[in-house]
Amino acid sequence: MPEGVSRQVVLRRRPVGAPRPEDFEVVETPLPTPGEGEILCRTIYLSLDPYMRGRMDESRSYAPSVALGQPMVGGTVGEVVQSRHPSFARGDLVAGSDGWRTHAVSNGAGVRKLDPARAPISTALGVLGMPGLTAYVGLLDIGRPKAGETVVVSAATGAVGSVVGQIARIKGCRVVGVAGSRDKCAWAVKELGFDACVSHRSDALDEELRQACPAGIDVYFENVGGAVLDAVLTLINPNARIPLCGLISQYNATERPPGPNLRALLVNRALLQGFIVSNHLDRMPDFLRDCTQWMQEGRLKYREDVVVGLENAPSALIGLLEGRNFGKLLVRVSDDPTRR
Amino acid sequence: MPEGVSRQVVLRRRPVGAPRPEDFEVVETPLPTPGEGEILCRTIYLSLDPYMRGRMDESRSYAPSVALGQPMVGGTVGEVVQSRHPSFARGDLVAGSDGWRTHAVSNGAGVRKLDPARAPISTALGVLGMPGLTAYVGLLDIGRPKAGETVVVSAATGAVGSVVGQIARIKGCRVVGVAGSRDKCAWAVKELGFDACVSHRSDALDEELRQACPAGIDVYFENVGGAVLDAVLTLINPNARIPLCGLISQYNATERPPGPNLRALLVNRALLQGFIVSNHLDRMPDFLRDCTQWMQEGRLKYREDVVVGLENAPSALIGLLEGRNFGKLLVRVSDDPTRR
Repeated sequence: MPEGVSRQVVLRRRPVGAPRPEDFEVVETPLPTPGEGEILCRTIYLSLDPYMRGRMDESRSYAPSVALGQPMVGGTVGEVVQSRHPSFARGDLVAGSDGWRTHAVSNGAGVRKLDPARAPISTALGVLGMPGLTAYVGLLDIGRPKAGETVVVSAATGAVGSVVGQIARIKGCRVVGVAGSRDKCAWAVKELGFDACVSHRSDALDEELRQACPAGIDVYFENVGGAVLDAVLTLINPNARIPLCGLISQYNATERPPGPNLRALLVNRALLQGFIVSNHLDRMPDFLRDCTQWMQEGRLKYREDVVVGLENAPSALIGLLEGRNFGKLLVRVSDDPTRR
Repeated sequence: MPEGVSRQVVLRRRPVGAPRPEDFEVVETPLPTPGEGEILCRTIYLSLDPYMRGRMDESRSYAPSVALGQPMVGGTVGEVVQSRHPSFARGDLVAGSDGWRTHAVSNGAGVRKLDPARAPISTALGVLGMPGLTAYVGLLDIGRPKAGETVVVSAATGAVGSVVGQIARIKGCRVVGVAGSRDKCAWAVKELGFDACVSHRSDALDEELRQACPAGIDVYFENVGGAVLDAVLTLINPNARIPLCGLISQYNATERPPGPNLRALLVNRALLQGFIVSNHLDRMPDFLRDCTQWMQEGRLKYREDVVVGLENAPSALIGLLEGRNFGKLLVRVSDDPTRR
């Protein structure tokens, strides 16, 4: 990249159905200069997450759409390369929300300094970042699992699901994952310690899930919707709780997807609660304390799927929406100084 | 009816789809005799309620099915005609659960004495009974309406819905009903004081509901499911609450009914909570205190749709499932001594 140039990936057009590479465009701009009270960061890692699909649409949602011609939004880990802000110094490693850009100026709001001695800096976008907080809040505050209960989590090897399942294990629950391949399922059981994991691509999903949940399902952490939810609802117990975190199976849908029959929720007096992590930032200190400790004790593991180069972010996001990643999906935008 | 004979309506076969008259059978049995600690009651009023359709099926639910050949279950108001129980005397008027029978023996468990000077005895099956408690608990404990919020209730002129809407008005909410005819809607607005009421049979339901809810929907008390729920979900506000009380639109369904798209619940961080009134009997004293007072103040009105004769209970229940009743549906099984 030429000196003094910043690259960014902008939204070129709104996708209909699955996003395509042509919906994005890489553009170069002059390197921005921080004003008084601002910092310039070089992006090291960009987080790719399912919610980004929603930001590409114009429809009403909880957050504004990305405007056409503007860079895609996203969580980032970067290095401060210029600072005119009293709280940050050149060389600081920070977590922020700089989006799909190699460099960005910010005023420091919402930017958090990272200590690479405490945990690898990339984890600030995964197990110790928004996905981890999402899992923590959704499972503990909405799902309220009790020891001995059965917790099912879909997208079980993803950034959120893998943390959900491991916290549920730590809390003494039977944990059953639903994932997209036999490899992912094997990893969830062998590495993460899930009691069982079934593939949502199996023709016998209903039966396999039933066998994996002999005492029914008390908590279902919902990331996907569709057929997995249907299968789960046939097995929920009275007073079941369903934190509704995502519906990735329908994010690319162009027609109204079929919804679940609510009868199971009615007769089982079940709770379904949609939530958005940004409404729960007050739980960040508890989350960081608990999950950092569990990670250091070896009870909370993670897996990263790292794509190299900002220009590959579009295809990586497209793959994420199809379940092609395996672990927390990151783009390494530039050199990680802690891994030299 | 000959002396010494009791009649009952039994379930003859399990309906497929809508129940038909031939699914029921009226049978006569000798008048039962109370043993020590028991009472014999003559049924005056039998309550007909949508949940009864579920009891006719064999599928798993929160309560056992009615066995073939056994009398249908149901709430009743009756008169004690023989008592060998220390707490009850001949002539006592009581609310119980004697089912579709002209006479029944019980041990007094769950039987509540009524004071006809306090309220008409039939109200113990409606506005001051299980339907009223259902409305009270679902709206106040799950819906948690705040003054100024918009509350929508479906089956708005039914035994539950009419109480929901009136309590929401008492709590200072904007109340919009959804009902099955223009007559019902007019009654909800003129008599019950709803701010608006739209017909679910209108071709323009979505648009009419939108116009009736200019500030969106904060609480939706769900009795019906289907197209009404779909229309509501396009209008819910962030942090909306949906007490899930019933799904009458699908009780007769023979195929899996289409479900709602959960996206609206996700992006609005909404709560959907199934509940069954029998889990909330601890609220009965609060409910009776509040609703009796509101009734005496003229702020809580009700309408009864009374069918005469136990033999007409099957066709009345069939009509209830099609929305043909207007107000709380009761069968007058025998003479009401308070109305002589």
